[in-house]
Amino acid sequence: MKPYFNKITILGVGLIGASFAMAMKKHGLCRHVAGYGRKKANLIRAKQRGIIDSYSLDPEEACKDADLVVLATPPSLFITLIKKIKPALKKGSIVIDVGSVKGFISKLEALMPEGVSFVGCHPIAGSDRSGIDMARGDLFKNAPLIITKTNKTNNYTLKKIKALWRSIGSRLIIMGPSEHDRVYALISHMPHLIAYALVNTVADIDKSSLKFSGQGFKDTTRIAGSPPELWADILMLNRGNVLKFTDAFKNSINRLSSCLKKGDRDSLMKKLLKAQKLREILKNEKG
Amino acid sequence: MKPYFNKITILGVGLIGASFAMAMKKHGLCRHVAGYGRKKANLIRAKQRGIIDSYSLDPEEACKDADLVVLATPPSLFITLIKKIKPALKKGSIVIDVGSVKGFISKLEALMPEGVSFVGCHPIAGSDRSGIDMARGDLFKNAPLIITKTNKTNNYTLKKIKALWRSIGSRLIIMGPSEHDRVYALISHMPHLIAYALVNTVADIDKSSLKFSGQGFKDTTRIAGSPPELWADILMLNRGNVLKFTDAFKNSINRLSSCLKKGDRDSLMKKLLKAQKLREILKNEKG
Repeated sequence: MKPYFNKITILGVGLIGASFAMAMKKHGLCRHVAGYGRKKANLIRAKQRGIIDSYSLDPEEACKDADLVVLATPPSLFITLIKKIKPALKKGSIVIDVGSVKGFISKLEALMPEGVSFVGCHPIAGSDRSGIDMARGDLFKNAPLIITKTNKTNNYTLKKIKALWRSIGSRLIIMGPSEHDRVYALISHMPHLIAYALVNTVADIDKSSLKFSGQGFKDTTRIAGSPPELWADILMLNRGNVLKFTDAFKNSINRLSSCLKKGDRDSLMKKLLKAQKLREILKNEKG
Repeated sequence: MKPYFNKITILGVGLIGASFAMAMKKHGLCRHVAGYGRKKANLIRAKQRGIIDSYSLDPEEACKDADLVVLATPPSLFITLIKKIKPALKKGSIVIDVGSVKGFISKLEALMPEGVSFVGCHPIAGSDRSGIDMARGDLFKNAPLIITKTNKTNNYTLKKIKALWRSIGSRLIIMGPSEHDRVYALISHMPHLIAYALVNTVADIDKSSLKFSGQGFKDTTRIAGSPPELWADILMLNRGNVLKFTDAFKNSINRLSSCLKKGDRDSLMKKLLKAQKLREILKNEKG
């Protein structure tokens, strides 16, 4: 199946939305890309750079005649946007999102008009460096791509969307929305909260110490440079899981602190060794 | 002043010790490098690769006739080592350490024999990738180098050691031992504890989720791959500061969690924005 689309509409032309547009064009998978966003200057720049072919500040207008609509704004806007674009969605078209939280996608599915199908997608390719200036047509190449399948997912649409992501180089993983939110709370959302909290600790105690930091601090806190608006959404929308794992993390911290308080170097060593061993798994991959 | 040394002895031929030897040779700052370590195989490999010229499994023997002795083992071994090498230290020689904790260096200073001077040094160039296979002669190039000056520091020796690090490309920073330990507890030691705790949280909850992780998790936890033996030492030796800042960090976490619990997106946004702004400072530097 060739995943070709006559017209694609990107709602939210940021790092992910713009990179998706560039990838689709690069691989000849579409004829026309329309963009919608709240900042006109950004849309003009995206058009000047050939990332999109047309734009509108009205989401409904942007989605007219679209064969594929991509929700690429912060996820708290998805429901409002779908309500707005609903009248423009044509039969046989597909709506996907590229958000990092999936727990609420049953609500998105329920909002689809007759004959329009929805597939939840999550490319693991975000960055602290956001915006179209950082967009690249190969952003999704070799990156994991989660498709969250539900009992409402249309099989034909699923095949087409799988073919689409495969065509632009993603490594597909299928999981349910609640498993997705649990897994990503653990390995992405809670770690983001930790990174933001770590930078704020330094901000509160001694900002000037930052100039003495090495690569370790930079790496550990890189994700705290991620867009606050997006991450406030993600953390809020997945807060049940995030709070649960944050509590587990605090317990893990307490177990290490307790070794320090007791002066118990042997127990401390064991706990550091446990972490180091697990971290080895990731060491030989990129990064 | 040319910081030339006829014989240098490296006690602990790991990433930092071996890189120091390579840097000194590369810049023609010594004639002979002797190595001491606990693992003979490692010393043999270091000699075969030309990192050291001779080795001994006896630290006292390794230090015979040395003009410069470099303490490059995990810091908990420093005091025992100095007691062992003391008889071999010749008048006019210099002992430096390259450890990450400085609170106890007054003890090291007090152990120096008449005519031997000590300078505490901390190159900000460690890595999770340890051992001589990762060593490089340019490891210290452009890296910050902290010299911890005390009221016992000999001025002539200080000048020579400053010239040494400058010759191999380090960016010198002078601070007192207690300021050093406070600053590095905040921007390095406590963050290491956090990274180890984060990986252990994933280990306890769901190891298998690691395979879905993106670059963010890898970067955030990279330092949890650092050598446990070294880091158990550092955390124990600086535990007063580490525990204090870990408490501050937990408060910072609690302030974010509290926003999630209350569903207070505005306050959450403000806190994320505060962190993101401070993180911008580091963003345009390497990494």
